[in-house]
Amino acid sequence: MSLSYPDDLKLLVNEALRAYFPHSDEPLNTVSEAMAYSLFSPGKRFRPVLTLLAAEALGADPKIALPVACAIEFIHTYSLIHDDLPAIDNDDLRRGRATCHVKFGEDVAILAGDALFAEAFVLVLTEQSKCTDPGPLLEALKELAVATGINGMVGGQVADIMATGLSVDRVTLEYIHNHKTGSLITAAARCGAILGGGSFAQIEAISEYAGHLGLTFQIIDDILDVVGSTDGVGKHVGRDADNRKTTFPGQLGVNRAQEEAQATAARAIEALSGARFRTDRLVDMANFVLRRTS
Amino acid sequence: MSLSYPDDLKLLVNEALRAYFPHSDEPLNTVSEAMAYSLFSPGKRFRPVLTLLAAEALGADPKIALPVACAIEFIHTYSLIHDDLPAIDNDDLRRGRATCHVKFGEDVAILAGDALFAEAFVLVLTEQSKCTDPGPLLEALKELAVATGINGMVGGQVADIMATGLSVDRVTLEYIHNHKTGSLITAAARCGAILGGGSFAQIEAISEYAGHLGLTFQIIDDILDVVGSTDGVGKHVGRDADNRKTTFPGQLGVNRAQEEAQATAARAIEALSGARFRTDRLVDMANFVLRRTS
Repeated sequence: MSLSYPDDLKLLVNEALRAYFPHSDEPLNTVSEAMAYSLFSPGKRFRPVLTLLAAEALGADPKIALPVACAIEFIHTYSLIHDDLPAIDNDDLRRGRATCHVKFGEDVAILAGDALFAEAFVLVLTEQSKCTDPGPLLEALKELAVATGINGMVGGQVADIMATGLSVDRVTLEYIHNHKTGSLITAAARCGAILGGGSFAQIEAISEYAGHLGLTFQIIDDILDVVGSTDGVGKHVGRDADNRKTTFPGQLGVNRAQEEAQATAARAIEALSGARFRTDRLVDMANFVLRRTS
Repeated sequence: MSLSYPDDLKLLVNEALRAYFPHSDEPLNTVSEAMAYSLFSPGKRFRPVLTLLAAEALGADPKIALPVACAIEFIHTYSLIHDDLPAIDNDDLRRGRATCHVKFGEDVAILAGDALFAEAFVLVLTEQSKCTDPGPLLEALKELAVATGINGMVGGQVADIMATGLSVDRVTLEYIHNHKTGSLITAAARCGAILGGGSFAQIEAISEYAGHLGLTFQIIDDILDVVGSTDGVGKHVGRDADNRKTTFPGQLGVNRAQEEAQATAARAIEALSGARFRTDRLVDMANFVLRRTS
């Protein structure tokens, strides 16, 4: 991990994910095993780290947002498990390991995803509720629900599927990216800002930053799928082209997509320019996302 | 529908489901179409009606629980869509119509289920929050989340899959039934009781009633799969035997399973015996569930 990545917060997240992993009373623990397999695969923990960074930027102890941050990683993991299914992206490698359905079967993988989604809400309602007032708690829950529904992640995934193999316009391309991955990334930052006690203006500034950051993240992801190596990225590269996916490098070529990513990262940083809170680690994160190679 | 079924509440639910169906900004509306197709299939609306019955039993206007009731029908529909998938039960007929994946493809069906789950929480957080204080609202949300997670619906579904084709003991059989279908039915009743302003003792009495009611419902469901007709039941019968599913009639034979259902319905009614609230329509519901033929 690069020097500019907040590894201290990533460590907090990894410890908390272990502590918050739900206990199952299911006789064979099959679904728990599948959930743990995917959740504890090595990863950057980008979304939960962003939640903690947003809380910290507003002067709060980042630990106060740990349950929501971990819930967001549960949700992200659920979305990866479902995305990788044979009926959707049909991927057999993720984070350097066999995907959940390859290891546990399609039936258990579908249900492990479903369970991670439900347990994300259980986690917020049992653990976050201990340290947050009902008002911000309900706001954070609504962020999570809206970001994962038809006007969020799932809307983007379905549009992505429907656009596969078609030539789409820039508006549709941005719709797909802003929803499929952008919604949850923005919600991650917003939840941190809400739980960190941010004012309306502060939450909006962090939200705008996160919107641009999410798009940068996705453009770079698509570029790495073209120019990266399977070893470096931890999943098969070249899948987007194989699957005839709608991507920025596919539409613009790698060089112009790289320029788009630079412009988008600059907009993320610009969104923080008038902010009356600590922005250094948010700026570092934007630079990290732009320069990442895995 | 039988005379003893609360058709007035079913009508309320059907009207509210239309009103609360979420608006999508997804360019092609594909996922909305798939969600609507499954949600507006003809059904008894048993779980949301139970929510309203519980609120009404405690003296509240049942309408105050309509958003949560509809959210529970969203969740039930999501669970049916995922259960019917080729990788799980591989059913092509449900509520008298082609199942979601047959009509829209497996990819869209998986995501339509995911979206219904997310939108259930959106619905509670946007509509129920308008008429319920944060305390009971958070309690109801927790009921929904826990009931759908690894110690609820998904735990039961996975145990059911793992038990398929095996000879399991009575404890495992009850675990499967109480979790796979029982958890959401109990949560439906508990949410109604919570939003209806029930005391702890009242909520517990309704909870015990609903636990027995849910088991009765499932035993009868399994019996109908053996003795019912596809026309009457609206789905292929004989599927449990074909799929080597663990069921009460499979373990005990139809006659002893029928006796079990009678005993379980009696326990549901008995749970209400000392109750200081209106119980007549809850008792009617237990009798309806026991005698239903579709």
